[in-house]
Amino acid sequence: MELVLDLAPVLAARERIAPHVRRTPVISWSPPGGERVHLKLEQLQVGGSFKARGAFNALLTSPAGSLSRGVVTASGGNHGLGVACAARALGAPATIFLPEKAPASTERRLVGLGSRVIRGGVAWDDAWARAVERARATGALLVHPFDDPAVVAGQGTIGLELVEQVPDLDLVVVAIGGGGLVAGVASVIKALRPGARVVGVEPVGAPSMRESVAAGRVVRLASVKTIAGTLAPLAPSQLTLDLTAASVEEVVLVEDADMLSAMRLLWDELRILVEPAGAAALAALVSGKAPLRGARSPVVLVCGANLDEELAAPVIRGGP
Amino acid sequence: MELVLDLAPVLAARERIAPHVRRTPVISWSPPGGERVHLKLEQLQVGGSFKARGAFNALLTSPAGSLSRGVVTASGGNHGLGVACAARALGAPATIFLPEKAPASTERRLVGLGSRVIRGGVAWDDAWARAVERARATGALLVHPFDDPAVVAGQGTIGLELVEQVPDLDLVVVAIGGGGLVAGVASVIKALRPGARVVGVEPVGAPSMRESVAAGRVVRLASVKTIAGTLAPLAPSQLTLDLTAASVEEVVLVEDADMLSAMRLLWDELRILVEPAGAAALAALVSGKAPLRGARSPVVLVCGANLDEELAAPVIRGGP
Repeated sequence: MELVLDLAPVLAARERIAPHVRRTPVISWSPPGGERVHLKLEQLQVGGSFKARGAFNALLTSPAGSLSRGVVTASGGNHGLGVACAARALGAPATIFLPEKAPASTERRLVGLGSRVIRGGVAWDDAWARAVERARATGALLVHPFDDPAVVAGQGTIGLELVEQVPDLDLVVVAIGGGGLVAGVASVIKALRPGARVVGVEPVGAPSMRESVAAGRVVRLASVKTIAGTLAPLAPSQLTLDLTAASVEEVVLVEDADMLSAMRLLWDELRILVEPAGAAALAALVSGKAPLRGARSPVVLVCGANLDEELAAPVIRGGP
Repeated sequence: MELVLDLAPVLAARERIAPHVRRTPVISWSPPGGERVHLKLEQLQVGGSFKARGAFNALLTSPAGSLSRGVVTASGGNHGLGVACAARALGAPATIFLPEKAPASTERRLVGLGSRVIRGGVAWDDAWARAVERARATGALLVHPFDDPAVVAGQGTIGLELVEQVPDLDLVVVAIGGGGLVAGVASVIKALRPGARVVGVEPVGAPSMRESVAAGRVVRLASVKTIAGTLAPLAPSQLTLDLTAASVEEVVLVEDADMLSAMRLLWDELRILVEPAGAAALAALVSGKAPLRGARSPVVLVCGANLDEELAAPVIRGGP
C-alpha cells in the first residue's frame, strides 16, 4: 500500500489559511522554441514564496496559548519570511535564527516584519540547533521548515489550486529543498490527478532527496555546493522522503548554469525576477532534464524570489 | 456631447490580439497600513509591458501587404519591445530607432527578438523623426507609440479585462506617458462603469497631459526631468488629449521619490520588480496624491518593467 498524504488535512489547511494567503495566478507561456507551459507564480505569495502557506497552517494549528510564548525558527530566507508574515498577522512575537550567509536584504525584511533576527552558524543546521534550544528554554512554538505535517499540508494547498487552474495538467515540475513543497503538492496531485507525473528537481551539488529516494532511507550529504541556497539542506526528513518516494515520479538534477539561464529567461521574457531555486523547475524543463514524455499541459512551479542584488544584477543586465 | 472612444474597436481589438497577448492576472493586496488594492499585473504582458496590446492591434489592422515592407518605430523601451514582439510573431522585419539614453538591456532584448536597432538622438522626438524618414523611404509601416486609434484601442483591452476581473471597481489609477494607455482604459471604464473614477498619473517633472488638459490644447513642454523615462514625452497627441479630457477625472503628479518608494514596496511586499513608470500609479495611491474619495475597490495598473540593473540594485538591496 502506498503512503499518500490524506487530502483532508490539506483541505482543512486551505480553509484555515485562506484569509491570510493569496491564491497565486497561473500564466501560460511558450519559451522561445519550446512548448507551452503553465507557470504557477508562487513568488507572488505573501512573503515572496510558497512558505507562508505552511507557516500559517503551522501557527494556526498550534496548541491553544502557545503563540503567546512566541514562534521560533531557523531559515536562510523564505521559510523565515513565511513564519515572520504569519507571526505578524497572528500577533505572535517571532525569533528567526539566520545562518551567517543569508542575504542582508532578507534580514532587513524580517526586521521590517517585526521579527527578532539572530545571526549565527555557517550551515542552516547550526542555526536550527540554536532555534531548538531557544524554543526549549522559552516554550515558544518551534516551526520546522519541512519536517512537520502541518507545514506539508499547507504547501499542499498549491496542488488544490493547480488542479482548478490547470484542469488538464499532466506534468508538474517542482523544486526540492527539504521536500515539504514537493511532498505536499505531489500527494495532492497523485490523489486528484493520478495520471499526472510529478517530477522533483534538485541542484547537482545538493542531491539529498535523490540519493535518499535511491537508498530508501534518509541520506545525509557530507557537503553541498550550489547557488540555490534554499535547495541545499543536507538531508530531507523521513516524512518528506516517504511522501516523495510515494508520489514523485523521479527526481532530476540541474546545474547552477541551468538555473541561471532559466532566471534570465524568466526575466527577459516575463519580467519575473526569481532566486535560483525559483527558476529550478523551469530550468529542468527547458534543459530537457525533466523530460516531457508526451506531456501536453506541463506545470512549472515558480516558488520564490528572495535574492540579493549581486545575483539580480547580471540577470537584469542581460547580455553575455 | 462628450467624446468617448467607441467600444466596438476595442472589442474587435480584443478578438484580434487574443492569440498573441496574455490576459494578465489581477492580485489583491493591502499595503502596510493601507486599504486593499487590486493590482493589474501588466508587466507580465508579452514584452514586459502593456505595449504589446496596441502594437499587435496596429500591425494586425495594417493595410494588406504592408507588413512585408517591414515595421518601423522609435522608442526608449516598452513600445519598441511591444512592436518587436508583434513583428516577430507576425513575420515582419522590424527596425527600432532608439534614443541614446535607452537602457542597454533594452537594446539587447530588441536584438534578441530579431529587430534591427538604430541608436541616435537625445530625445525620443529625434529618434521618431528618423523613423518617419525611414518609413517614408521604404514604405514600411510606421507605428506611433500612442497617436494612433489602433494603438489606443489595443491598450483599451485592459479595461475590458478589468471590469471582468474586478466587477465592483470604483477607481482606476493609470500612469500617463503619451496618453495611449490612459485614453484606451479610461474610455472603456467610462463606457462600462460610468460611476467609476479614472485618475491619471504623471511625474512632477513631465506634466504634459496635466498641462494640456488644463489649457484645453496640446501643450508641448520645453523640457522634462524624471527618472520615469517612459512617462516623459514632451507632449500628448490631440487624440490622447481629447480622450483623456473626456474620460479621466483628474491627472495628479508624483515625485521621483514617490515612484522609487513604490518600487521598493512592490519588491519588498510582492517580489514584483518594475520600472519607475510601472510603480507610478501605486505611488499616487499610497502617497495620497490620487485620493481614494471613498473608493472601496481601487485598481492600480502596474504597467511595465523594463529597467536597468543600476535602478534595480538599490530596490533589491533595500535598507536606507
